Amino acid sequence: MTASARTPLPEPTIEEIRLVTVLNALADPVRLRILLQLADGHQDMACIAFDLPVGKSTTTHHFRVLREAGVIRQHRQGTSRVSTLRTEDLAIALPGVLEGVLAAARAQLGPA
Amino acid sequence: MTASARTPLPEPTIEEIRLVTVLNALADPVRLRILLQLADGHQDMACIAFDLPVGKSTTTHHFRVLREAGVIRQHRQGTSRVSTLRTEDLAIALPGVLEGVLAAARAQLGPA
Repeated sequence: MTASARTPLPEPTIEEIRLVTVLNALADPVRLRILLQLADGHQDMACIAFDLPVGKSTTTHHFRVLREAGVIRQHRQGTSRVSTLRTEDLAIALPGVLEGVLAAARAQLGPA
Repeated sequence: MTASARTPLPEPTIEEIRLVTVLNALADPVRLRILLQLADGHQDMACIAFDLPVGKSTTTHHFRVLREAGVIRQHRQGTSRVSTLRTEDLAIALPGVLEGVLAAARAQLGPA
């Protein structure tokens, strides 16, 4: 295995994604900010590339909460973790929820 | 004032409704169940009329969380409290969020 191999971290399947868990994961201003940055042109970003008002270990925690809820996918890539939004999986599991929350987050939190 | 006067309980204005607070309020299976029952033909219900798997004081707590987040409106009416969904206010404050969550809740929790 080379340093550039993409190793996915554990995540729920589409069938395992639960509304209550996703709502809990999204009910946080930092995690909504991560969501906006992933949605608005920053797909496939390394954690370190995010502009967030919290430290590294807190950031790692927020990404894990989002991944374990099924909102994002994370891969190890070399020494960093790359995150992508599970837009299509969420559209199947919870149609309309991500779109509604993203639109409201943009309106209330401003551009990512 | 007669016993039938409708006295509204304190609630946020439309401008005061915050996405994070609403997501927190909705991130609970009992409160999602209340939401479904209000949305699906049970508008303007007294708390006592709800079919919920929890006791009276817990129910009262869940209704307060929903009201303080701006999701429902509550009136005192005689000795009971009557609750209504703030559908139009939420459509202004957080367009799309309530619709998405209701659709997903129906799919995952079954009919109210």
